[in-house]
Amino acid sequence: MVECNQDALDLVFSAVADPTRRAILQALARKPATITEIAKPFPVSLNAVSKHVMVLERAGLIRREVLGREHHCTLEPYPLREATAWLDHYRRFWNVRLDALERYVARKMKAASKGESRHGRSH
Amino acid sequence: MVECNQDALDLVFSAVADPTRRAILQALARKPATITEIAKPFPVSLNAVSKHVMVLERAGLIRREVLGREHHCTLEPYPLREATAWLDHYRRFWNVRLDALERYVARKMKAASKGESRHGRSH
Repeated sequence: MVECNQDALDLVFSAVADPTRRAILQALARKPATITEIAKPFPVSLNAVSKHVMVLERAGLIRREVLGREHHCTLEPYPLREATAWLDHYRRFWNVRLDALERYVARKMKAASKGESRHGRSH
Repeated sequence: MVECNQDALDLVFSAVADPTRRAILQALARKPATITEIAKPFPVSLNAVSKHVMVLERAGLIRREVLGREHHCTLEPYPLREATAWLDHYRRFWNVRLDALERYVARKMKAASKGESRHGRSH
């Protein structure tokens, strides 16, 4: 089935398994930022944010450029594509189940409306 | 942007951040199985597989039914839908980049063919 780089998937899924790291990616999806800018909205230390950025960088999700004393971070979305490709395989499962549910509801509604019209005729 | 249950996302992404757990999900996507059947192809102990199954169960990705001494496991794909929804937001980023790359290549090819035809005329 899905052929993916397993180590890359481990790193990406681990990286996005944390709400602060997901929030950092969401912020960088709006625009590139320095570590200080990234850290501003979070109630954790600059050091903690810096560690989260390192995890994201190791997963290939952030590119860091050092300009003087500033570390500029940019979102690198490509590793997320591989993660999405892996998950896409399972899309058919919930689609199949939703189709089945839809058919079941349609059947029930048809049966109910038939019952009602029969009920109407008998009175 | 994407509104998701953060705790559920933490659990799901952590659960799929391991190659054995991803392989277990892939096996259960083919058909439901007992823990012993799940464990068979893996070079790790039944106990280790059982722990992986517990992690997947906690993330809501596996439903377990105990029938006598057998634990029957079934894939529950819905939590993966939420994970996919979160990742879908980033789909546009690589799409945008691929579109830009496509336009760049088309421009280059057009320029190259113009250059060639000019070159052809001058001789």
